[in-house]
Amino acid sequence: MPEAVLNDAAPRLIALDWGTSSLRAYLMGEGGAVLETHRLPLGIMQVEGGDFAGAFEQAAGDWRRRWRALPALAAGMIGSAQGWVEAPYVPCPAGLEELAGGLVPVPGAALSIIPGVVQHGDAPNVMRGEETQILGALSSHGDGRFVMPGTHSKWVEVTGGRIRRFETHMTGELFAVLRRHSILGRFVREDDPPPPEEVARAAFARGVKALRDAPSGLSPLLFSARSLVLTGGLAREASLDYLSGLLIGEELRAGLHAMSGGLALVGDAALCERYRQALSIFGVTAVELLGDTAAAGLWRIAGAAGLTGAGLEKNP
Amino acid sequence: MPEAVLNDAAPRLIALDWGTSSLRAYLMGEGGAVLETHRLPLGIMQVEGGDFAGAFEQAAGDWRRRWRALPALAAGMIGSAQGWVEAPYVPCPAGLEELAGGLVPVPGAALSIIPGVVQHGDAPNVMRGEETQILGALSSHGDGRFVMPGTHSKWVEVTGGRIRRFETHMTGELFAVLRRHSILGRFVREDDPPPPEEVARAAFARGVKALRDAPSGLSPLLFSARSLVLTGGLAREASLDYLSGLLIGEELRAGLHAMSGGLALVGDAALCERYRQALSIFGVTAVELLGDTAAAGLWRIAGAAGLTGAGLEKNP
Repeated sequence: MPEAVLNDAAPRLIALDWGTSSLRAYLMGEGGAVLETHRLPLGIMQVEGGDFAGAFEQAAGDWRRRWRALPALAAGMIGSAQGWVEAPYVPCPAGLEELAGGLVPVPGAALSIIPGVVQHGDAPNVMRGEETQILGALSSHGDGRFVMPGTHSKWVEVTGGRIRRFETHMTGELFAVLRRHSILGRFVREDDPPPPEEVARAAFARGVKALRDAPSGLSPLLFSARSLVLTGGLAREASLDYLSGLLIGEELRAGLHAMSGGLALVGDAALCERYRQALSIFGVTAVELLGDTAAAGLWRIAGAAGLTGAGLEKNP
Repeated sequence: MPEAVLNDAAPRLIALDWGTSSLRAYLMGEGGAVLETHRLPLGIMQVEGGDFAGAFEQAAGDWRRRWRALPALAAGMIGSAQGWVEAPYVPCPAGLEELAGGLVPVPGAALSIIPGVVQHGDAPNVMRGEETQILGALSSHGDGRFVMPGTHSKWVEVTGGRIRRFETHMTGELFAVLRRHSILGRFVREDDPPPPEEVARAAFARGVKALRDAPSGLSPLLFSARSLVLTGGLAREASLDYLSGLLIGEELRAGLHAMSGGLALVGDAALCERYRQALSIFGVTAVELLGDTAAAGLWRIAGAAGLTGAGLEKNP
């Protein structure tokens, strides 16, 4: 056993951010420091034959053999009905206590799964994974409004350290299906080179502005991603950036209608930067970028559940 | 030659409603009477190797041999860049005079094609085929607002007998791509039997109402077509009808924002009935259903272009 593991950097937790299309495993030490990271293309949709135990072994087997009693905690779609073990949603308002209290153990795997969160109502909302990122964001940020761009973007309102309510916008998925399967994707082929950065950025901004200034939202504007090209008003290779601007613009229009004030962006840096650009076009400049906060959230929830208590460094 | 063709029912025009996915050919007589109809799965996307002449022959060859000098006129995507001969768009405002004046002959085919209409602007709109249906609708209806539901629904404002402005809503295409390619289509398989009629109708109405009552439109509601099923609030087999209600509701919300007052619905009877149901949920009950008016429009435009003048009945 190398001496290093007995010092301040001694591993305390294996934390898994296990979503639909990817798995990130973090070896975490004192204070939530990330000691090592493994990224694997083993999202729950890629795990063959439902062999989640095998995927867990690939992601963290070496760590688990080296530090035998290390606790492990997972967040994300791994806790869905299509995942390893279903971790029932906890209802809003949900904070550290509710999430830590709702952990579901995976039998025989020395792993627990964080529940998702449900907001009941006429148009319910569910999240799995984002609740953990929110808890991570709250380790460096107070109550507020959080925007988490992605396939299914979440707009989350936090008060008293608890997720009070949230919305889902299917912006990323809409873009993907319209690009691949609708008439709006016909001008750009999958293997075409992207347009020059300034052309892409201008087309994106144009889409956001068109949406911002539209009196009735996206519905009558969507087709302009085609008609502008047909009538010579938009370069064919810029049509997808314009479309992206329209779709993100629509998300902002609707989201800002429900939640105004300063916003914090959580998630992938490049995507958050795109949202920051769009928000500035909407006049919202009080925006913080918090990055990926999943590991921080896993650490906090593990702590609240007593998984990262003293004594672990002695186990090896 | 049977005697019948020399009486009042003598053919005067071969009229083609030639769109992306279907071709309808009408043999028309005095006063615009439809004497015979041929429906063929020969939309411009189905015509192999661009053999439009062959498709025209399949649709109308027997009529053309029987009445050799019969004029022929076509409307729709056949006049697009992907069609037989491109018929450049005429700009709004466009009525009988502009459309008849913009006919483009197909060399060697004794056929002319009606141009589409373009509305220039920051978010341009184009139509091909709908302008002809509008002219047909105007043969039995005065100026007003026309809604033409479909893959790309058109909302058209007509004043002084001319198409003044219009909007495009990609409602039908959105439904198709979301059903086939997004997570919202996962609850119903292509070969599942449809739900009972009253279940489907109630789910559709629920989607329309949810949209009508939503403060910020479709974006935060779309995901409810999934989350309602996940949380037990909607039967899995009714999820597509609910989704259809959301999408049509969004079209109505946006369309009614731009154009209020009485509306006339043009097009497929079953789809128009669905829109009438949705409009009544929005409190719009002054709605007329005009049916398919393409043949009537082709007849009017042919007349204005002098194609259906006297003397034709002598040609055979």
